Amino acid sequence: MSEYDVIIKGGTVVNAADTQQADIGIKDGRIVALAEKLSGSAARTIDAAGRYVLPGGIDSHCHIQQPSSGGGQNAETWESGTRSAACGGTTTVIAFAAQEKGKGVKHMVADYHEKAKQACIDYSFHIILNDPSDEVMETEIPELIESGHRSLKLFMTYPKNRVDDKQILRIFETARRHQALVCVHAENHDAIMYMTEKLVGNGFGNTKYHAWCKPPLVEREACQRIIMLSELMDLPIQIFHVTCEEAAEEIRRAQARGVKVFAETCPQYFVLTADDLDGDQRQGARVLCSPAPRSVADQQALWNHVRMGTIGNVTSDHAPYNIDAPDGKFWAGDNAPFSQIANGVPGLETRMPITFSEGVAKGRIDLQTFVALTSTNSAKLFGLYPKKGRIGIGADADIVIWDAEKKQTVTQDMLHHDTDYTPYEGMEVTGWPAVTLSRGKVVWNDGEVGCEAGWGQFLARAPYDYIKPSGKFPTPFNPITGKIEAGKTEG
Amino acid sequence: MSEYDVIIKGGTVVNAADTQQADIGIKDGRIVALAEKLSGSAARTIDAAGRYVLPGGIDSHCHIQQPSSGGGQNAETWESGTRSAACGGTTTVIAFAAQEKGKGVKHMVADYHEKAKQACIDYSFHIILNDPSDEVMETEIPELIESGHRSLKLFMTYPKNRVDDKQILRIFETARRHQALVCVHAENHDAIMYMTEKLVGNGFGNTKYHAWCKPPLVEREACQRIIMLSELMDLPIQIFHVTCEEAAEEIRRAQARGVKVFAETCPQYFVLTADDLDGDQRQGARVLCSPAPRSVADQQALWNHVRMGTIGNVTSDHAPYNIDAPDGKFWAGDNAPFSQIANGVPGLETRMPITFSEGVAKGRIDLQTFVALTSTNSAKLFGLYPKKGRIGIGADADIVIWDAEKKQTVTQDMLHHDTDYTPYEGMEVTGWPAVTLSRGKVVWNDGEVGCEAGWGQFLARAPYDYIKPSGKFPTPFNPITGKIEAGKTEG
Amino acid sequence: MSEYDVIIKGGTVVNAADTQQADIGIKDGRIVALAEKLSGSAARTIDAAGRYVLPGGIDSHCHIQQPSSGGGQNAETWESGTRSAACGGTTTVIAFAAQEKGKGVKHMVADYHEKAKQACIDYSFHIILNDPSDEVMETEIPELIESGHRSLKLFMTYPKNRVDDKQILRIFETARRHQALVCVHAENHDAIMYMTEKLVGNGFGNTKYHAWCKPPLVEREACQRIIMLSELMDLPIQIFHVTCEEAAEEIRRAQARGVKVFAETCPQYFVLTADDLDGDQRQGARVLCSPAPRSVADQQALWNHVRMGTIGNVTSDHAPYNIDAPDGKFWAGDNAPFSQIANGVPGLETRMPITFSEGVAKGRIDLQTFVALTSTNSAKLFGLYPKKGRIGIGADADIVIWDAEKKQTVTQDMLHHDTDYTPYEGMEVTGWPAVTLSRGKVVWNDGEVGCEAGWGQFLARAPYDYIKPSGKFPTPFNPITGKIEAGKTEG
Amino acid sequence: MSEYDVIIKGGTVVNAADTQQADIGIKDGRIVALAEKLSGSAARTIDAAGRYVLPGGIDSHCHIQQPSSGGGQNAETWESGTRSAACGGTTTVIAFAAQEKGKGVKHMVADYHEKAKQACIDYSFHIILNDPSDEVMETEIPELIESGHRSLKLFMTYPKNRVDDKQILRIFETARRHQALVCVHAENHDAIMYMTEKLVGNGFGNTKYHAWCKPPLVEREACQRIIMLSELMDLPIQIFHVTCEEAAEEIRRAQARGVKVFAETCPQYFVLTADDLDGDQRQGARVLCSPAPRSVADQQALWNHVRMGTIGNVTSDHAPYNIDAPDGKFWAGDNAPFSQIANGVPGLETRMPITFSEGVAKGRIDLQTFVALTSTNSAKLFGLYPKKGRIGIGADADIVIWDAEKKQTVTQDMLHHDTDYTPYEGMEVTGWPAVTLSRGKVVWNDGEVGCEAGWGQFLARAPYDYIKPSGKFPTPFNPITGKIEAGKTEG
Repeated sequence: MSEYDVIIKGGTVVNAADTQQADIGIKDGRIVALAEKLSGSAARTIDAAGRYVLPGGIDSHCHIQQPSSGGGQNAETWESGTRSAACGGTTTVIAFAAQEKGKGVKHMVADYHEKAKQACIDYSFHIILNDPSDEVMETEIPELIESGHRSLKLFMTYPKNRVDDKQILRIFETARRHQALVCVHAENHDAIMYMTEKLVGNGFGNTKYHAWCKPPLVEREACQRIIMLSELMDLPIQIFHVTCEEAAEEIRRAQARGVKVFAETCPQYFVLTADDLDGDQRQGARVLCSPAPRSVADQQALWNHVRMGTIGNVTSDHAPYNIDAPDGKFWAGDNAPFSQIANGVPGLETRMPITFSEGVAKGRIDLQTFVALTSTNSAKLFGLYPKKGRIGIGADADIVIWDAEKKQTVTQDMLHHDTDYTPYEGMEVTGWPAVTLSRGKVVWNDGEVGCEAGWGQFLARAPYDYIKPSGKFPTPFNPITGKIEAGKTEG
Repeated sequence: MSEYDVIIKGGTVVNAADTQQADIGIKDGRIVALAEKLSGSAARTIDAAGRYVLPGGIDSHCHIQQPSSGGGQNAETWESGTRSAACGGTTTVIAFAAQEKGKGVKHMVADYHEKAKQACIDYSFHIILNDPSDEVMETEIPELIESGHRSLKLFMTYPKNRVDDKQILRIFETARRHQALVCVHAENHDAIMYMTEKLVGNGFGNTKYHAWCKPPLVEREACQRIIMLSELMDLPIQIFHVTCEEAAEEIRRAQARGVKVFAETCPQYFVLTADDLDGDQRQGARVLCSPAPRSVADQQALWNHVRMGTIGNVTSDHAPYNIDAPDGKFWAGDNAPFSQIANGVPGLETRMPITFSEGVAKGRIDLQTFVALTSTNSAKLFGLYPKKGRIGIGADADIVIWDAEKKQTVTQDMLHHDTDYTPYEGMEVTGWPAVTLSRGKVVWNDGEVGCEAGWGQFLARAPYDYIKPSGKFPTPFNPITGKIEAGKTEG
Repeated sequence: MSEYDVIIKGGTVVNAADTQQADIGIKDGRIVALAEKLSGSAARTIDAAGRYVLPGGIDSHCHIQQPSSGGGQNAETWESGTRSAACGGTTTVIAFAAQEKGKGVKHMVADYHEKAKQACIDYSFHIILNDPSDEVMETEIPELIESGHRSLKLFMTYPKNRVDDKQILRIFETARRHQALVCVHAENHDAIMYMTEKLVGNGFGNTKYHAWCKPPLVEREACQRIIMLSELMDLPIQIFHVTCEEAAEEIRRAQARGVKVFAETCPQYFVLTADDLDGDQRQGARVLCSPAPRSVADQQALWNHVRMGTIGNVTSDHAPYNIDAPDGKFWAGDNAPFSQIANGVPGLETRMPITFSEGVAKGRIDLQTFVALTSTNSAKLFGLYPKKGRIGIGADADIVIWDAEKKQTVTQDMLHHDTDYTPYEGMEVTGWPAVTLSRGKVVWNDGEVGCEAGWGQFLARAPYDYIKPSGKFPTPFNPITGKIEAGKTEG
Repeated sequence: MSEYDVIIKGGTVVNAADTQQADIGIKDGRIVALAEKLSGSAARTIDAAGRYVLPGGIDSHCHIQQPSSGGGQNAETWESGTRSAACGGTTTVIAFAAQEKGKGVKHMVADYHEKAKQACIDYSFHIILNDPSDEVMETEIPELIESGHRSLKLFMTYPKNRVDDKQILRIFETARRHQALVCVHAENHDAIMYMTEKLVGNGFGNTKYHAWCKPPLVEREACQRIIMLSELMDLPIQIFHVTCEEAAEEIRRAQARGVKVFAETCPQYFVLTADDLDGDQRQGARVLCSPAPRSVADQQALWNHVRMGTIGNVTSDHAPYNIDAPDGKFWAGDNAPFSQIANGVPGLETRMPITFSEGVAKGRIDLQTFVALTSTNSAKLFGLYPKKGRIGIGADADIVIWDAEKKQTVTQDMLHHDTDYTPYEGMEVTGWPAVTLSRGKVVWNDGEVGCEAGWGQFLARAPYDYIKPSGKFPTPFNPITGKIEAGKTEG
């Protein structure tokens, strides 16, 4: 028997803060050795000379085989979604298990698990709470957290999802009591509804006006509010898909006063702008997502906040609605207003290449930051670390070998998802995954797909240090324990 | 017949930005002449030598003879309230006419007018909207605005008052369409309810914990949110009773980007702190108000923001609940928690003296700023200018002659309200009104009350320039007209 | 004998915070009466119906008959300069008396007084200190301050003027000890010299590059530094000619922490941009001034800071160098680089019209703010109040009657200065002075010049409250007294 | 022959962003293997079970065997200094080679190299420029940079060191042209000199007043100024020993607008306050350093800025003046004022333990951040990476095995420096180095010193990516090339 199952030779191994020239030895799906020159035998040797060897991507925000609450048909199965992710260098996804209003979450989550058995790469779940009822919050959620579902998601907008401040506090209390992270879609619901009604009601239904119904200030407001609630409960949160300077600035201010608020952005906000929504309805639908794409100045602001650390991870927010299918994203027809078009764009496979191309290839960030953004920080934030998110001894052998020089024009044809379009059709990027390994198994190899449905494993997540509360409340009263806690040390 | 009804001789006349030595000639209730030495005859001559002659105070935030929605019995009648105001140097009040949920506003306002006929000084009304229904917003409010009620008030908190963001937008739309200013009590409702339940539920019912259930961040959040909604609709607003650096900072930031947001504070936030709430329940009830008193640092911050212009007016928020009466403020008995004690403190008569003493006598502001804060800015903000808020030709002869040197210990005995206590019992202040004139009539004269119920007149307010919208929306779409408006000039 | 020398009838009298319909009675050069209808007799009656009656302008920053330290010939005499000012609605100037390095200031100031005897309107002096030697600072300056010269000016740049931080501290100490205000030209000298040398040395001598040798950050830096020195000494200062958001932001931040720093801007920064410097050298020289004109965004920022109160007064910084005269502004010829062209533009006469047109006529500020900016605030800041800067009883009858509707195209021909150009040639403005009175004397009357050389009087300035120090130092040590001062009250 | 020279077994290996359980194989002074279980033979095996294995510390700011310009005798030799460092877990120092005014730098640097041959660990040099003359800047410095001295230091204060803005620009130009980083001691010289003279002149000579002569605002000012100059030249800089919120805030603001400004702090600013200077002169001298220790609030602010990334590294600023030796730090005797006491405290050996104890043990930062602060970030910033600053394949085997549980009381007796005191006498810390390896050689082993004078090697530093300029100047003009460079991409 060989000493190693796989050896990756001669590559430049990059982690979130370190770079080294090293061979990698993999055994039983884990990394067991790093060396200048690995001398042992191996069943398979992969030559990585001249290439970067990175931790496999972690896409901690994607919708897979999830019934759409906003209309439109979700185009992706667990097999197709995770295959597409793997081909794009991603080796872990955290997708959603979404509660329906009026229903419980226990059986719902079980159903999602059942579907996810077809996954080609490892996965975990965020539980979307649309209806935090007594039964759900007091019994089901604590059990689910205990069984490894350590992240909850809430929406501050969308008619079928929105929870109000009171419900948010209930969710926060449960999350803090049982140690889960809460992720938030932060936009002001009533403002969006009001503007949408006014726009559509006055005949402004073109997709262009999607951006007008939700300008940056409604995102800023919701960020400010959720941060306040987070401070009140001393609960770390992640704000999903930050798109603009206004929102990022508020997050920065909160971080500066010691609030544990983490922020994410997505590739669509690096490369799309509101102008892309302006065209015929069918074309606009291809780039329509929420929050809306902003301006070039906002793109630059996002990069600046990435460099400063305000924004810590980049995810796809993969939301796979077909355009041309019956009942697809563009389900209400060419004359329907933007408000009837499903929100979201596909992006599992293009997430890492676009981030690399815009970030590293254009000189905005270095390679280590790229690794931090696309893998390590998500691993830490969601309790997957040290199993995931690094190339190091004992970690799962989730690895992507990156061809930094490759010029690639993105087209729908070349992608491996089941969604019927890509919003990035025709975009040229620099850098593409050459080889992807999931726990040592080659799932993508320079054009050849090696995925196997069912290979992926559920990642149950135990309590972890990274998101522990600061222990400081606005007053000496701790609403979780119901006690006054004197003598908190500070700073 | 005398040329003048009254001449005020030899005083130092102070306006919001100017000071002059001048005699003042009054005829038919108005100021008709200012001169170095007024030579004409007069029915009455008042010697103001060595004293400051200021525009009569305008208290644009006070509750008078208004059924309490929060429990407790409102102690003041229009006669007692305006008498007390006049004795404290105030010559105009803007009180509230409050809608009950589920009811209309037209007859309600008429009832308030009926009661206000007993007023001793001039008055106007803000209409409190607790239930912005179709009938109210589409018919009644436009008519009331048209008939001179150009300010609406909304509460972001209190169970019986709170309107949500959707309702706020409806109110804002009507206000903008028909030209009214909206005033806001800005605190996050759900956060306060949550904290109150947790505190009281865990046995922390002492009045001290009133401040803990609503820490500064819940005020900051509501300010941020109402400012966003104001920007969305391009509607000028006034934020009532700003108490802390956090809230003032957000207002400042909005003003700095050109938002027409105006801010008020009250004397209680200059002199009380959260520590004053800490004691026996009966004593705590005397200073319990909302938002809660803060810290000494916040007091200093308020003065700083007064000097910078962030905060433009100082009002009493007079909320007159007796302590010892059956069904009074302290209605639920010595063992009842803070949440059952009516919020608010009386202050019509002490507003100007405390502001003078803390501001001018202690060197924090100059006399002209004192006039701006207590009179002129409120007159401008609420459409009473140039009739009120200044000593100048053509203005109503609403005047207070100020004794800047007088040392006065505040006691309940010396005050003229009908509330059974003052939160400032025993406080020594420097400066007190010597003489107050309402449209030329002496209503207070060094201890002698000259008020006459029914003397006061309703001040109907026409549209005015000061609060006109900027004309700029977040996008080119104007939700009021439903049109896209290109080519807005900026800056 | 008439009761009044002049009556101004029927105008709308505007002060810095108040507006009234009133007749004005003038006697012996002062305003002695304001009334709805002035009944007394008058030697002269001026009809102001339909017009605004404003306090005469105060131009607290202008160079008149001052030898240029920067090259070029100063084109203005006291007669021509003050005539031009009067025709533009200004009734008081504060000009400079400038020290030469190596020389004293006593006789220098006396010389300036001699020349200023030809003034047509009232005047005062700032003393420019280029060389704060022992003799000057210990003997001469204290005497001059005592005799009414209560403002000193220093330059942080220009080779012949620049004082370093040590010299600044010496000036500050003397100013604080003897109660004078210090005015500052704030730009980083070494940075400008370095960039100038690099630009000119590499052949970039076009006037366009004047703006490049002193970008906004060198202005921001100097503002930050002078503010620090001001805080260290607890000395109120005025920063002259603020041009950009960067500098204004720093000033705002300092004001927000309670520092008494006052800021000025000039009309050239409202209407010129760096683009205006880009052209042939002769044309560029017409708009070349320091700091350099900035961008349209900076113009908007300046208005925003005017509205917020960051910037309190607007002056001309009149710097009258002829373009076409031998040894004029453009003294080194068409091929000379920007660094050899005298800095500054003329503007005494156009100051108020441009500020009115850009500010009031375009809706950026109201009339009261216009009065504050162009007159009242300068009067207060420099100790001329209450004699100047207001229309009120006892004030000097320095008045401008304003025709707010007049459309006027600015041309060199129509102006009354002796400089041979205006940087605003061809600009159309709305609003122009109709009549100007200096202490009751009509000096400008709808096109007719009534100025009289020698009419103007020197304004000696006594100590005044407005600029008194806050009494707070960074530490308990007071460097002026050399003592530790405990127990300072704050806020 | 053994496969490895040393194996470190069973430890928890921590890098700046990653943690792993791994054995480490060392050969020829470098790390050649990491594995779950290293099977090869080794000459020496070190058991690290239950301990953290960290990259050896890099102290990039220390004065060793350097003649003092401020008075006092430098107590440390290269042998004693580096021995002390090694015993405290540090394996690389960057010390200073200091120019004397009026002299060159070439031979000076050679002299320092000669002395440094006695070093026990690896080292490099920053060149202090006190006199940037033509010869020095045009010939000597370029040669020295070329030979691996890629960092220059300048002082904005101290009479014998201070360079003015013009000199700074000259230094910056050379640094940018030849690719060196500039490090800055940022305090306003004239302000300090002025305050010192006033304090001492008025009899306030106690060491307590050292903090009063240089309050935070003089540090803030110098930070603002050096940042401006850095932006003007687009030159990355490091600001040494940031001590207060005011300075950190300015640095943060600059970073937020994309300026490459890096900041350092020191353990003394984490644990000392201005109060520690208050006592008898001899005791005060023990903690007297510059900038001065601040307040507890500033300590907390520093930690906050460490967590946000404003501040990236922690160094000792080891400045070893004996207290009791003739001509020591306290050289002028017990009655001499603070201004005659040499500035600085020793700290090579206590740097890592204090930072660990205050940071990690008290829960303010995690272990990875500790590694980043004390080693990795300095390696990257100064061009020592990837040779130093990490535990990874190919890196030098500079390693510290950390005993995180050890309680240690700091005393002068237990330290290994030649300075005659420690400012931390009696302080109890948690965590201490167990074993230190320098390129595989054990130099410290649980109390046993294994240092060898002469073992240390000079680290010549080649150009490196990390500090490359952004390529953006305030205007399109590049003062380095003297060319206008259009079309810079942004953001």
